[in-house]
Amino acid sequence: MAEHSLVDLRSDTVTRPTPAMRRVMADAEVGDDVYGEDPSITALEERVAAMFGHEAGLFVPSGTMGNQIGMRLVCEPGQEVLCDADAHVVTYEMGAAAAIFGISTRTVVSAGGRLDAAQLIEQVRPRDNWHLTGTAAIAVENSHNRGGGLVQPLAELQELWNWSRRSGVAVHLDGARVWNASVAAGVDLLTYGRLADTASVCLSKGLGAPVGSVLVASAERIATARLWRKRLGGGMRQAGVLAAAGLHALDHHLPRLAEDHEHARLLAKRLGVDPASVETNMVVLDDVDAPMLAEAAKAQGVLISQVSARRIRLVTHLDVDRAGIDRAADLLGGLLDR
Amino acid sequence: MAEHSLVDLRSDTVTRPTPAMRRVMADAEVGDDVYGEDPSITALEERVAAMFGHEAGLFVPSGTMGNQIGMRLVCEPGQEVLCDADAHVVTYEMGAAAAIFGISTRTVVSAGGRLDAAQLIEQVRPRDNWHLTGTAAIAVENSHNRGGGLVQPLAELQELWNWSRRSGVAVHLDGARVWNASVAAGVDLLTYGRLADTASVCLSKGLGAPVGSVLVASAERIATARLWRKRLGGGMRQAGVLAAAGLHALDHHLPRLAEDHEHARLLAKRLGVDPASVETNMVVLDDVDAPMLAEAAKAQGVLISQVSARRIRLVTHLDVDRAGIDRAADLLGGLLDR
Amino acid sequence: MAEHSLVDLRSDTVTRPTPAMRRVMADAEVGDDVYGEDPSITALEERVAAMFGHEAGLFVPSGTMGNQIGMRLVCEPGQEVLCDADAHVVTYEMGAAAAIFGISTRTVVSAGGRLDAAQLIEQVRPRDNWHLTGTAAIAVENSHNRGGGLVQPLAELQELWNWSRRSGVAVHLDGARVWNASVAAGVDLLTYGRLADTASVCLSKGLGAPVGSVLVASAERIATARLWRKRLGGGMRQAGVLAAAGLHALDHHLPRLAEDHEHARLLAKRLGVDPASVETNMVVLDDVDAPMLAEAAKAQGVLISQVSARRIRLVTHLDVDRAGIDRAADLLGGLLDR
Amino acid sequence: MAEHSLVDLRSDTVTRPTPAMRRVMADAEVGDDVYGEDPSITALEERVAAMFGHEAGLFVPSGTMGNQIGMRLVCEPGQEVLCDADAHVVTYEMGAAAAIFGISTRTVVSAGGRLDAAQLIEQVRPRDNWHLTGTAAIAVENSHNRGGGLVQPLAELQELWNWSRRSGVAVHLDGARVWNASVAAGVDLLTYGRLADTASVCLSKGLGAPVGSVLVASAERIATARLWRKRLGGGMRQAGVLAAAGLHALDHHLPRLAEDHEHARLLAKRLGVDPASVETNMVVLDDVDAPMLAEAAKAQGVLISQVSARRIRLVTHLDVDRAGIDRAADLLGGLLDR
Repeated sequence: MAEHSLVDLRSDTVTRPTPAMRRVMADAEVGDDVYGEDPSITALEERVAAMFGHEAGLFVPSGTMGNQIGMRLVCEPGQEVLCDADAHVVTYEMGAAAAIFGISTRTVVSAGGRLDAAQLIEQVRPRDNWHLTGTAAIAVENSHNRGGGLVQPLAELQELWNWSRRSGVAVHLDGARVWNASVAAGVDLLTYGRLADTASVCLSKGLGAPVGSVLVASAERIATARLWRKRLGGGMRQAGVLAAAGLHALDHHLPRLAEDHEHARLLAKRLGVDPASVETNMVVLDDVDAPMLAEAAKAQGVLISQVSARRIRLVTHLDVDRAGIDRAADLLGGLLDR
Repeated sequence: MAEHSLVDLRSDTVTRPTPAMRRVMADAEVGDDVYGEDPSITALEERVAAMFGHEAGLFVPSGTMGNQIGMRLVCEPGQEVLCDADAHVVTYEMGAAAAIFGISTRTVVSAGGRLDAAQLIEQVRPRDNWHLTGTAAIAVENSHNRGGGLVQPLAELQELWNWSRRSGVAVHLDGARVWNASVAAGVDLLTYGRLADTASVCLSKGLGAPVGSVLVASAERIATARLWRKRLGGGMRQAGVLAAAGLHALDHHLPRLAEDHEHARLLAKRLGVDPASVETNMVVLDDVDAPMLAEAAKAQGVLISQVSARRIRLVTHLDVDRAGIDRAADLLGGLLDR
Repeated sequence: MAEHSLVDLRSDTVTRPTPAMRRVMADAEVGDDVYGEDPSITALEERVAAMFGHEAGLFVPSGTMGNQIGMRLVCEPGQEVLCDADAHVVTYEMGAAAAIFGISTRTVVSAGGRLDAAQLIEQVRPRDNWHLTGTAAIAVENSHNRGGGLVQPLAELQELWNWSRRSGVAVHLDGARVWNASVAAGVDLLTYGRLADTASVCLSKGLGAPVGSVLVASAERIATARLWRKRLGGGMRQAGVLAAAGLHALDHHLPRLAEDHEHARLLAKRLGVDPASVETNMVVLDDVDAPMLAEAAKAQGVLISQVSARRIRLVTHLDVDRAGIDRAADLLGGLLDR
Repeated sequence: MAEHSLVDLRSDTVTRPTPAMRRVMADAEVGDDVYGEDPSITALEERVAAMFGHEAGLFVPSGTMGNQIGMRLVCEPGQEVLCDADAHVVTYEMGAAAAIFGISTRTVVSAGGRLDAAQLIEQVRPRDNWHLTGTAAIAVENSHNRGGGLVQPLAELQELWNWSRRSGVAVHLDGARVWNASVAAGVDLLTYGRLADTASVCLSKGLGAPVGSVLVASAERIATARLWRKRLGGGMRQAGVLAAAGLHALDHHLPRLAEDHEHARLLAKRLGVDPASVETNMVVLDDVDAPMLAEAAKAQGVLISQVSARRIRLVTHLDVDRAGIDRAADLLGGLLDR
């Protein structure tokens, strides 16, 4: 089977730069960003910061670095960040908060990742107490990866934010896929951005850029973040080639996310999954023989993710068109019917 | 009011050495324990290890150090320990696991601290995966402090242990008050000890010694623990004076814990709390005006703990006799009746 | 003054991709490297590993990440790495070894960065002792940045390596500019590579690629390094665009480093610096008014580095041709003569 | 040979509490120090702070904890502390600064541990730079253990302090044996204390108390230190029994240190070591067969320290009287003559 005929539904991270994006990258104006002299990176950082209503931005090589530095900006070693037990920051970032920053994460098991502000607030503990581990921040993921791409309820986000202003506990947004949430819920990025002290957003997932995320926060915090980025080894030189791809993605790939969502709903319908459970670009099937399905589909050129032995995940994105969706639906539908 | 008439129910950590214990301390044979030459410490370490069926023990200055090193012995930086969200190791140890060892703690909100093995096992994640935070150990607290001194069900401990042998996930026992659990449940210490890879037990709570805990594990792990104790600053010289107190406490104060439990049940009855909820030496009263009660009681020479604005905790111990219990019950009963 | 006429001698990190390199980047075959599927990255990793005689390689976003993970592979938290007090790993990497890995660095003040194997070996301390901080590794920088680009004597490297095999102390090579050392000394990369357990080499300095370094070591160690890269946030997706630039640089920019060295000697001669002190692509001038020179030169379109108030550094590279060297020499010579 | 006839010259840490000290311990007034209610500890903390001219003190279980927390108070993770390569804090504290606090230590190889303020100051690097590891503090050891008990020159201490006030770089004093320095040099403790931002002093070395050190600093810093002590597991309950021993030692064992120094000079003379090299209570013999001497002496009831294969160290203290010195001198003299 020719490689071009692969339908890769494992993740929206697998997208490859389009020809137009590659041209932009080849022509990008660059400089030494460790000296702060890469105009493409500076333009990207300023643009993303403005989109989310923050003073400043920082280009980082991954969403993991964006999230971890973002949490470090609002939490000291010895303090804790509260979040749900399926959050990307505790599940898929290899214990970085504790390992590299000395930050504890305490979790509540949520209903499929959906934010319940009251449930988290109830768990908050005072800071600067003589023996308690104090809660410095709450991290929210929107859309929520292990929650099957669900969009966090705006009312919950607002309740959390209002409470956070009174309590002094900060809010970090893991906005790796906040673009999908925004498009799906019709809530603009500015609204989401203003409900967080720090936010990390990814260019290399639904937006289709090859590499990079942007952390946004106050100018003072971003100055500190720049030092941490260097310390973690995330200081890159002429990374403007990557930033140019990000700028191109913001121009050309943001509105088209609606198409991915439509594709996901279509897949769901075809596979007997309730389309109401599909809020963005992910379809989750439970109670299936995940290893069998993954292997059988792969043999036919369709790649899917095994979340567990009984759960698979399908993710739609820029590199899967309607024909690919149809082919995947036909194949997986057939395998499920057996 | 004379100091001797104080009834201090804040915690069982407040006990002072008895005259007999002081004599033992004054006569203790000591040496330089950093060189491994303190006979009293060595005797204590060997005795406690044997009581719990482990190869070796290590005397440490606090339960916090015992728990933290215990978890470090079975968990590498970047991995996680799973436990309940009210566990002492995540609540009252100031985020040490992350701050000093780079260990993540992930939590489930439990039913008042009671161990539900299945609930924890369901949250376990594989180790050595390319992006997951792997679960290396589960920590269990018995009896459970924030759970009001509840005793963990033996069947749950056994289920967890059996599963842990198959899965390779270790079990750490925070046995600060395992003595109380043992006396209350009639389960011997050996049984509890054999259901854990590492366990930390405290001499300075119900047992009434002034300072110290003992960490027990395999001989190989304790050798490593000795290095970590030094690195954390817990290496002490002629600490045999403290160990002698611990040995004395094991001889004389262990059986009498039943009396503390009886006192706690009595207090509960007198204050209208269901005595069935009192499994060891703690009484918890909810939906009360905690600051008012604490202040009013203090003015009359009875000290109690405010767990939150609406919850108080009373802890019985060696330094509160029956007359003290009666006095506290009279006073608090009167305040509650108002 | 038009920007194209700038002569930027601050560092060899400032080079911009050539048109040919940009074309290669635009055409690069890419995939999701977090899944290990980017063919350009895999090709680069394998090629660099082979060049240095190691089993495997790992592409990382910066030399800092390459060095830090490299040291972590051969040193546990609580142990120490020994090196000179001007080493890049302790001077310019923001204390990362301690901050993110718990590794101590102990230093000796060397003669301008030149490796004296005996001086370092004398400082080594035994590991697994009950109170000593054990020495797990020695880090060597070649060529040496703060040493003015000096090339480490091969005999010293060999002595260190031979001793390290007997002692069990590992050797890490900070080979950010090992290419320059190899070309200048006529020692091939394989020879340098075989005198180290782990080595980090940079593509974005003299070689002129925009971003990235490669860490080489045994296959087992690189597997561990891959996990640490993810934890630090260095896992990138379609970074093959960057790797392609690196491959191009290895093909086309490696031999030409001799030209940079020739330029540096020329600059030295013109500025009255002993050309014998110029071993690679750096010229250091001491006892000058650094701030005045830097500012005056900048006003005329020549950028230089102030190492301290009395020291400047000039670095030659791909983006400065013979005419630029002449212009800089004329300008700086005039300023020095005043 | 009966144990009471042992002459233990390995270290001054081996002293055992005297009968008088044991009586004081047995009678000590105690409380729960984690609640701040142990009167003996409070008295000791206040007394030691006053002796050194600082606002507050904190009782800790070891000199290691005192030093490490002391350095943490004046240095953030990612910054560095500068000291000599033989300092106790980098040699004998198991890499704790990096391992538990993320602090780098950078060292200069000194002349036998003697402080050369200019040599250290020359190595200082600016803080808050975008890529440098900034120097936050300098640590000084007085008297210097691996320097054979040498006393730091007051003029150097003053030069360092004056410079530190201008530069904003803090000074930490490892004063484990500052008592010996004070007695030997006739410089009062207040003078030494006022030349440091933070200082850790030990009660369990020359002073002869069984356990403990006191960290002194400003009241604000000690409040922070209290939290770190808890996090490291150094919070002890009724540790007043230990503090009482410390208070007794300050009353009765401080002036007698002159006797230990006299004993050390005597030993030196008898063993052919230049007495001028003996500034306090240590005698170092170089170019000897250390393992042979240690073993042969042990067989005759004299214990000595092997610093390396060719160096031994003899330390005088409270538990070695004039007769013991004579016996050790006779025995070792004989062994050396062979």
